[in-house]
Amino acid sequence: MTDDDTNDVRIERRPGRRPGTSDTRSRILESARVRFAQNGYDKVSVRAIAADAGVDAALIHHYFGTKKQLFIASIQLPVDPEEIVRRVRDAPADDMGAVLAGLIFNLWESPQRHAFIALFRSAMAGDEIDLIRNFFLRVVLHEIAPRVDEPAGSGPLRVQLVVSQLMGVLAARHVLELDAIARVPVADLVDTIAPTLQRYLSGPLPAAPPTGDAG
Amino acid sequence: MTDDDTNDVRIERRPGRRPGTSDTRSRILESARVRFAQNGYDKVSVRAIAADAGVDAALIHHYFGTKKQLFIASIQLPVDPEEIVRRVRDAPADDMGAVLAGLIFNLWESPQRHAFIALFRSAMAGDEIDLIRNFFLRVVLHEIAPRVDEPAGSGPLRVQLVVSQLMGVLAARHVLELDAIARVPVADLVDTIAPTLQRYLSGPLPAAPPTGDAG
Repeated sequence: MTDDDTNDVRIERRPGRRPGTSDTRSRILESARVRFAQNGYDKVSVRAIAADAGVDAALIHHYFGTKKQLFIASIQLPVDPEEIVRRVRDAPADDMGAVLAGLIFNLWESPQRHAFIALFRSAMAGDEIDLIRNFFLRVVLHEIAPRVDEPAGSGPLRVQLVVSQLMGVLAARHVLELDAIARVPVADLVDTIAPTLQRYLSGPLPAAPPTGDAG
Repeated sequence: MTDDDTNDVRIERRPGRRPGTSDTRSRILESARVRFAQNGYDKVSVRAIAADAGVDAALIHHYFGTKKQLFIASIQLPVDPEEIVRRVRDAPADDMGAVLAGLIFNLWESPQRHAFIALFRSAMAGDEIDLIRNFFLRVVLHEIAPRVDEPAGSGPLRVQLVVSQLMGVLAARHVLELDAIARVPVADLVDTIAPTLQRYLSGPLPAAPPTGDAG
């Protein structure tokens, strides 16, 4: 399922992730990520994750505590979101949509997609809505919105429109796996969605908020 | 939360819904819809729905059977999806995106959004994925894809791209309630998203599948 043209957008692992001292630990996290992505938080048991990882459930509790704590540990994205944000922020203004689509959609072809899918499904189920909201507010909006805040005040809406289309692709291609959109090569998907993201980031915006208080 | 400019796109109720013979029944269904929309299928108890509706849980089981059967009954959309599909299909080719955005986003301002949100959240949790997939394949794809199948074979992908953006708006505005996109007036949201839908339906498509078998 991986495409070789993902090379140019590969994201380096966050330093310190997956310490070499504990293969078992990272195997458990990987099993958790896949299970949570496939079945959603509520439907996954620690026992099932333990079986997938080939360890005893007690060991999982020893390492991570509760199922909730294991979930939180497993959705720590294996990439640094700020690295993605930085690359998008630093791209030429007319190219931000293509850069963002290239980074995100290729990331979702890699095994790292499991963390995104698990997080998204969990957010839709209501488990981690605050976590997601905080992530958007703290990392994404704070970093990217000022870069696309034209007219003044439109930045947050622009970023959230982008987020809506990205979540929609995640839902259609990776959760529901609707046939046509699930089958399309990632490079074509990037070319198809990039203009949408670009328009949301820098195009005319009927929905731009009024600059004053009136309205 | 309703806008008055929704008048032009109001969808008639499916005939036979909410039989006048049973106010209790429809009150239970409404409570179920709201609860499932707010909390997701797994986190809702029949007891809580009964309390909201002011009835005994036993009555719910009498009317609807299991929680699962109640859920299925509650997500029967209070509008006829084929009516929406027909209006979009019959719109001028250059206007389909705006018609679709107007119909759907205004519908989501009405109390009927609860059924959509409940269905979507449930699909993301994995409860009703087949039901959703079948709905798209049977109703939406079957009716709309041939209308936008240019070049030949691209119809299903076009429709699924549209579905991705619609689901993304549902997720961002109505589930996560990200502040800027949740606050934007529906008319502006329609104007902002319509060009995206229109491009997916009739614009150039880098991701269009090859017309032959060679791929």
